[in-house]
Amino acid sequence: MTLVDEIKKRSVHVDAAIDELLPVVRPEELYKASRYLVDSGGKRLRPAVLILAAEATGSELKSVLPAAVAVELVHNFTLIHDDIMDKDELRRGKPAVHMIWGEAGAILAGDTLYSKAFEILSKVENEPARILKCMDVLSKTCTEICEGQWLDMDFEKREKVSKAEYIEMVEKKTSVLYAAAAKIGALLGGASDEIAEALSEYGRFIGIGFQMYDDVLDMVTPEEVLGKVRGSDLMEGKHTLIVIDAFEKGVKLDIFGKGEATQEETDEAVRILTECGSIDYVKDLAISYINEGKAKLDALCDCPEKELLLQIADYMISRNY
Amino acid sequence: MTLVDEIKKRSVHVDAAIDELLPVVRPEELYKASRYLVDSGGKRLRPAVLILAAEATGSELKSVLPAAVAVELVHNFTLIHDDIMDKDELRRGKPAVHMIWGEAGAILAGDTLYSKAFEILSKVENEPARILKCMDVLSKTCTEICEGQWLDMDFEKREKVSKAEYIEMVEKKTSVLYAAAAKIGALLGGASDEIAEALSEYGRFIGIGFQMYDDVLDMVTPEEVLGKVRGSDLMEGKHTLIVIDAFEKGVKLDIFGKGEATQEETDEAVRILTECGSIDYVKDLAISYINEGKAKLDALCDCPEKELLLQIADYMISRNY
Repeated sequence: MTLVDEIKKRSVHVDAAIDELLPVVRPEELYKASRYLVDSGGKRLRPAVLILAAEATGSELKSVLPAAVAVELVHNFTLIHDDIMDKDELRRGKPAVHMIWGEAGAILAGDTLYSKAFEILSKVENEPARILKCMDVLSKTCTEICEGQWLDMDFEKREKVSKAEYIEMVEKKTSVLYAAAAKIGALLGGASDEIAEALSEYGRFIGIGFQMYDDVLDMVTPEEVLGKVRGSDLMEGKHTLIVIDAFEKGVKLDIFGKGEATQEETDEAVRILTECGSIDYVKDLAISYINEGKAKLDALCDCPEKELLLQIADYMISRNY
Repeated sequence: MTLVDEIKKRSVHVDAAIDELLPVVRPEELYKASRYLVDSGGKRLRPAVLILAAEATGSELKSVLPAAVAVELVHNFTLIHDDIMDKDELRRGKPAVHMIWGEAGAILAGDTLYSKAFEILSKVENEPARILKCMDVLSKTCTEICEGQWLDMDFEKREKVSKAEYIEMVEKKTSVLYAAAAKIGALLGGASDEIAEALSEYGRFIGIGFQMYDDVLDMVTPEEVLGKVRGSDLMEGKHTLIVIDAFEKGVKLDIFGKGEATQEETDEAVRILTECGSIDYVKDLAISYINEGKAKLDALCDCPEKELLLQIADYMISRNY
């Protein structure tokens, strides 16, 4: 089986568990709003990481499903609130939650996913002390995601952001949830603190690589594949690492922060960023983060799940959307 | 000591614990936004209920402080998000969080309090199985609060709301957090499930009484005491139980849902609602809920803390703001 098949095999169970653990009950419209993005076809990478980490450390898929669902709900919660804050109208090629249910509805749909995540995580069958550790990991992670989103919004108001600041932001906003997924899987699998920590680091490194590669994809992927306008980060004035590197090299980008641009202007900006080497710089850095993450898996004994976790790491920088 | 002194004696510790458990760290502006409402002088009634329930069942104040803080943070989180959704500009007589930090900042300040509440609750020193039960109570409660707020917003769009629907909304939006406070206190105190449930019911009943009385206060309390415009519920078109009862009696209210009104128009509406008996009807119903709640405390042995919980119940319908 390919990696995609292996992930799919597990995501079928995750989707069934979502149906069971987050049913559309009264008030139905609230739960429809909460489920809308969850059901719109994410890749379920975070649940896959959690499940594989659990399987690699001695647990079974079935017993960790509520935890896998919890992590996916937190992910969707952050997307719903981020889209309100960033005024993004599209997500996965469809109208964002706040475009359908309004801002108030979307705030509440996100809040509901947030509390459901904790409610569902507490349902996992395991020793109370281990579940409590997982709760602690998840809540700390949610706090860090808020900090990361705050930094991200703050950067948009600033003239200049350093590379270190960008990496701190990405670490908090994106990578901590991969770290949490891997660590929670390991904790539920009964792993030692040392192995749980190694898996957490694996998640953190591949999460950073994932986001950096995402920034690259935003530059090079056509709208019909990405589900959003190409170069949107540039037009929105986002200080991605690509832009930071280019600015450090003295490059000028006319469409930066302009809100919109013609196809030609976008092509020109991407050409400039390619020629000055900034896109390759970030691609290479993403690869080195992925390799750092993979090295952390040395802590695990060889098993098919370890192999799949290594493949997921590589997938982060080989996907095209 | 009076009840106010007894609550104050405990809230001093709660405030110190907030300082310790929710420090203003980087990014500082996010934590300032999160702390702003928390520090603006709420009555700390929910933490008081939690601490007294714990003390009445055999625990000490110090050991349950993180749980008391968690409940207060959840309360503040809901206020911050509700004010965005309801477009309320004032809270406790001061500008709402979103008026200072913008909607995006306020969404994130609320989200931060939400995750911090769970993070802090997990720090309580007790048996893991008991802490986990408390986590479960808190997360379920948060979900119910979301459902209650959704119903509240839905009612504003509707022509007609029944009394039963109103009570369901109040139960979810307001009373469940009192129920959670009392139940978590009892669980941490080591109470049996039966006593924890009785305390939960106590909280639920007094919470409903509290909100009904709040609706009465909105009608009869001058702005300088209440911290918001008198009769604001009426002008906003809120289907409070007072209005529902009046409408059932065939009463017409010109300022209902009008957005604003002169002092004379408000006086006239309050006079009509008084004369048709709707204000008294709700006051009496609030009293009967309070009495139901007090009766639930029969499950506790006599002790000073039980006496204070009884006094808190009475306070709900004797306060003037």
